[in-house]
Amino acid sequence: MGGVLFSDKAFLFLLNIDGFDRYEYVKNFEQPDNLIPNTWIVVRIDGRGFHKFSDKYGFEKPNDARALDLMNAAAMEVVRGLPDLIIAYGVSDEYSFVFHRSSQLFERRSSKLVSTLVSTFTAHYIYKWSTFFPSRPLEPGFLPTFDGRAVQYPSVRNLRDYMSWRQADCHINNLYNTTFWNMIQRGGMSNTDAERELQGTVSSDKNEILFSRFGINYNNEPEMYKKGSVYELLPPKDTKDQTAAEEQTQEAETGAEGETKELSNTQAAKLRKLQKKANVVVKYVDVIRDEFWDRRPWILSNQPGKLPSES
Amino acid sequence: MGGVLFSDKAFLFLLNIDGFDRYEYVKNFEQPDNLIPNTWIVVRIDGRGFHKFSDKYGFEKPNDARALDLMNAAAMEVVRGLPDLIIAYGVSDEYSFVFHRSSQLFERRSSKLVSTLVSTFTAHYIYKWSTFFPSRPLEPGFLPTFDGRAVQYPSVRNLRDYMSWRQADCHINNLYNTTFWNMIQRGGMSNTDAERELQGTVSSDKNEILFSRFGINYNNEPEMYKKGSVYELLPPKDTKDQTAAEEQTQEAETGAEGETKELSNTQAAKLRKLQKKANVVVKYVDVIRDEFWDRRPWILSNQPGKLPSES
Amino acid sequence: MGGVLFSDKAFLFLLNIDGFDRYEYVKNFEQPDNLIPNTWIVVRIDGRGFHKFSDKYGFEKPNDARALDLMNAAAMEVVRGLPDLIIAYGVSDEYSFVFHRSSQLFERRSSKLVSTLVSTFTAHYIYKWSTFFPSRPLEPGFLPTFDGRAVQYPSVRNLRDYMSWRQADCHINNLYNTTFWNMIQRGGMSNTDAERELQGTVSSDKNEILFSRFGINYNNEPEMYKKGSVYELLPPKDTKDQTAAEEQTQEAETGAEGETKELSNTQAAKLRKLQKKANVVVKYVDVIRDEFWDRRPWILSNQPGKLPSES
Amino acid sequence: MGGVLFSDKAFLFLLNIDGFDRYEYVKNFEQPDNLIPNTWIVVRIDGRGFHKFSDKYGFEKPNDARALDLMNAAAMEVVRGLPDLIIAYGVSDEYSFVFHRSSQLFERRSSKLVSTLVSTFTAHYIYKWSTFFPSRPLEPGFLPTFDGRAVQYPSVRNLRDYMSWRQADCHINNLYNTTFWNMIQRGGMSNTDAERELQGTVSSDKNEILFSRFGINYNNEPEMYKKGSVYELLPPKDTKDQTAAEEQTQEAETGAEGETKELSNTQAAKLRKLQKKANVVVKYVDVIRDEFWDRRPWILSNQPGKLPSES
Repeated sequence: MGGVLFSDKAFLFLLNIDGFDRYEYVKNFEQPDNLIPNTWIVVRIDGRGFHKFSDKYGFEKPNDARALDLMNAAAMEVVRGLPDLIIAYGVSDEYSFVFHRSSQLFERRSSKLVSTLVSTFTAHYIYKWSTFFPSRPLEPGFLPTFDGRAVQYPSVRNLRDYMSWRQADCHINNLYNTTFWNMIQRGGMSNTDAERELQGTVSSDKNEILFSRFGINYNNEPEMYKKGSVYELLPPKDTKDQTAAEEQTQEAETGAEGETKELSNTQAAKLRKLQKKANVVVKYVDVIRDEFWDRRPWILSNQPGKLPSES
Repeated sequence: MGGVLFSDKAFLFLLNIDGFDRYEYVKNFEQPDNLIPNTWIVVRIDGRGFHKFSDKYGFEKPNDARALDLMNAAAMEVVRGLPDLIIAYGVSDEYSFVFHRSSQLFERRSSKLVSTLVSTFTAHYIYKWSTFFPSRPLEPGFLPTFDGRAVQYPSVRNLRDYMSWRQADCHINNLYNTTFWNMIQRGGMSNTDAERELQGTVSSDKNEILFSRFGINYNNEPEMYKKGSVYELLPPKDTKDQTAAEEQTQEAETGAEGETKELSNTQAAKLRKLQKKANVVVKYVDVIRDEFWDRRPWILSNQPGKLPSES
Repeated sequence: MGGVLFSDKAFLFLLNIDGFDRYEYVKNFEQPDNLIPNTWIVVRIDGRGFHKFSDKYGFEKPNDARALDLMNAAAMEVVRGLPDLIIAYGVSDEYSFVFHRSSQLFERRSSKLVSTLVSTFTAHYIYKWSTFFPSRPLEPGFLPTFDGRAVQYPSVRNLRDYMSWRQADCHINNLYNTTFWNMIQRGGMSNTDAERELQGTVSSDKNEILFSRFGINYNNEPEMYKKGSVYELLPPKDTKDQTAAEEQTQEAETGAEGETKELSNTQAAKLRKLQKKANVVVKYVDVIRDEFWDRRPWILSNQPGKLPSES
Repeated sequence: MGGVLFSDKAFLFLLNIDGFDRYEYVKNFEQPDNLIPNTWIVVRIDGRGFHKFSDKYGFEKPNDARALDLMNAAAMEVVRGLPDLIIAYGVSDEYSFVFHRSSQLFERRSSKLVSTLVSTFTAHYIYKWSTFFPSRPLEPGFLPTFDGRAVQYPSVRNLRDYMSWRQADCHINNLYNTTFWNMIQRGGMSNTDAERELQGTVSSDKNEILFSRFGINYNNEPEMYKKGSVYELLPPKDTKDQTAAEEQTQEAETGAEGETKELSNTQAAKLRKLQKKANVVVKYVDVIRDEFWDRRPWILSNQPGKLPSES
């Protein structure tokens, strides 16, 4: 070791290091968590403790447009930043991201998919916070955080039912919350009284309360509140790109059941490029009815360049 | 539905909603991912694309003290914010957090543990960025993100070997990097030449290069670079708390093999309180040798109040 | 405890028993292994050490009809004995059993499905052994055993490709083995010489060897050897049952993508009854081509009573 | 293809086969199910529908010695036939087999371990049936079958508690059943009346009923019924083997926490040989108390040749 003088301590330390190989076995405790091939992967993230969080930063009730817009802005970055995401749906403090069943991202490892997505979403949410809440700076003891999980759906029907489930949930919660907060804010009721009156009511009862007491036609409430937010990747507008996309589409034509053929590397690279050019847009639309899916064949085909016959 | 007029579209939408129950079955696709009881849980997080990220923001080579301090600052918030973390170890852009094997946090659900921890770390890393890099504001296209995974270790030996593995890795990488960057920055070599010369060398060769060419005794390099950063929870200084902690310790005495008895709710609440008071400190010490563990019996006993006989 | 006298030992034993509750926690270490809903479940079982086993009991090469018939006989009992099996495919010492994707058998627990199926198959294989090998009684040191595993397939295409994979494997192995053993048994070659000559040959080469040297047209070899064995459940012949089945079919009609609606208990009971009446038959047919599946719509619909329009 | 004439059908079939490679992707749907390293693996098997099965073949109530002896005989073959099993415990129609935590059998794949063990047990149970029930031949519609599952225990305490749980269960059930069947068989009560009277009773009540009504001191009941059956591997009697075993023991010395060092291939082979020579004996003893484990250090050390200081 030449002229270098080592203290006893450092020497012992180095001796230990010589045994480096004997520690490496601990890697064997890492268990694989790859999802099954050919399933639709939904990663849903949820705000942690957002009830308290929304109080802390004074979110408006029942909906705070700034907070929802911020959720959408963060989701947009996720959709743009990660490949194979075909659609995303957000409501309140939750967001669902759907990877196409052909996705091989991170070898479909569940932890890697979930943690990457949650981290990316968190990063953008915090970075953009001041744009949407310029007068309410974040405080270190009250930072927004999210958790997440991945769920696999084997069929298009299961996936669509998942989307319908979240949108139906959105509708039910929003109708309840809209009624509840009007009863309190404009009707002057206490939380307890409002809660008690709403117990056991059905949709038509709540519509009636809103209309008769507050002159509110629920049907005219903002679409974002009623429907939630849907991200989709529009086909590129450029004619050249469109043609390229259609060619890709034909080459990569999928089987009768929508099975994904393995794309060649060249095809994959071209498609990725088209995806980058695709317009990511948020809409407040009904995802339950067939019409939504029929008019957007590129969602399930994972071919953002494929234009529907009319749209 | 009283006087409320619904458009056809809204009506159809509501009709769909009436079928809400038929979507709920999609919850059954969520598969449980609870970790086995009584294993030590390590959640390791890694910076995503930090090679590129560190170039973008001009991190110093081979170590950037600001970047490491920022990692430590974010880790500190994680350790303070989540219960049952008994030790944490960071090196470069990775950090390992260890939950005590008795932890029931989130019912030991892997996705929930990993995503929560990754999100919390990301949040604080971004929030604190400007403190450590005041002159390099983050840019939206280059936000720092992290991924993570949970690994279970059945025995103390396995856990300690995991910690040793990471610290040995730290040493080996740091010695290599220190030599490599000195050869380039001070020796004027090209990356390729330095790489070629270092190929196949052992530790003593690198020590020799550092000493003979650059007068550097590796042993005198900063401890944080050589050893990595270790977070531990010190016992509370307050005598009253200390006594309380020792009483808890006796009540919660574990079995011959360190098995965890279920704590009563009261006991758990008291321990939690003590944990909050515990000092979280970062040190740059050897975690491979027995001495570290022998002098910190509270780490494995999960009783931060239990003072060692002498320290 | 009245007049009963207990020895010290028994007393201590009973004292321990009083602590019964404190052992029950060990149940929490059992981890759920339920398969995802709505996937096709294939349980494939394989003979353990059947190379040695077939030598021990003098199986004929390259195929032993008695051994294959015994495999089929054991498989028949599995198909008859367990619900929701829609098709089974056997070749050599392996058998694949397919549960319909709507199956809820054992709550779709993987261990339970696999172990039950393997145990049932083993039981019948041993019980029927003497019928197929009357002059070769089993010896205790050489009992036949099987292992197994469950695999999930999300789509019909994946399931059909699995079946095609096994049948293609059957073909390739049988062509090889038929050629190899003819070269040895009739051509008088050594194992090593035959192996060397066959190395690198394609199908047409082997066909040529069989034809030119041994006058064998591979096409005329027994179908069971070339195609493997397919179990299917035929629709009931009885007109009354058939009508009942068709009614069930209409009630339980599946969605556009063949999604399974939850059957009412009554419907499920009726279907189960029809399944019991269904004829389980083994055939040696091509399962790769569409024709097989087109003519047997009841396989994928899990409605054994549903007659195809023409067959 | 030389002179071989193929029918169209065969030709099409072969064409499909040429596409063999395109089916192989279905192997990717097989998910790994390896258990974590260094955990104690318990595989518990249970008779399927043994209530009905025992009625069918006229098992005596509350215990049938022939049936229990048959279970033990089948278990003996499992213990002899599979490596790394350190202890087995049987009661009624269930049996638990424990693999040493160092076992690498089948790469610790759960399905493979469970299905192999269940199949082996089933095979021997059926094969030996006629020895234990010479006058009750098995009938094909009523063959005995078993299911099974694997559970991991991280610590010796957890494993011992598992064993204690099963034995406590054995005691509780046997005391109940002994009392119940005496009330019916000798007391002339109806099932319903006996059940009603026993509801809510504790151990001492049942002991009192047995003693006062039927003159039975439960303590004198057969040990096999009260304690269940324990298989253990005794150290070899041969002095030479014993010395060899002790040498192995020293070479393979385990760490402070009983960590398993990787054995060299030679060491593993020697140990395997010693295991084969070990006497497998069944006993009806208390596994709850420390004494059992203290006197059999070879169980947990997985070194059957290591003699305890005194036994």
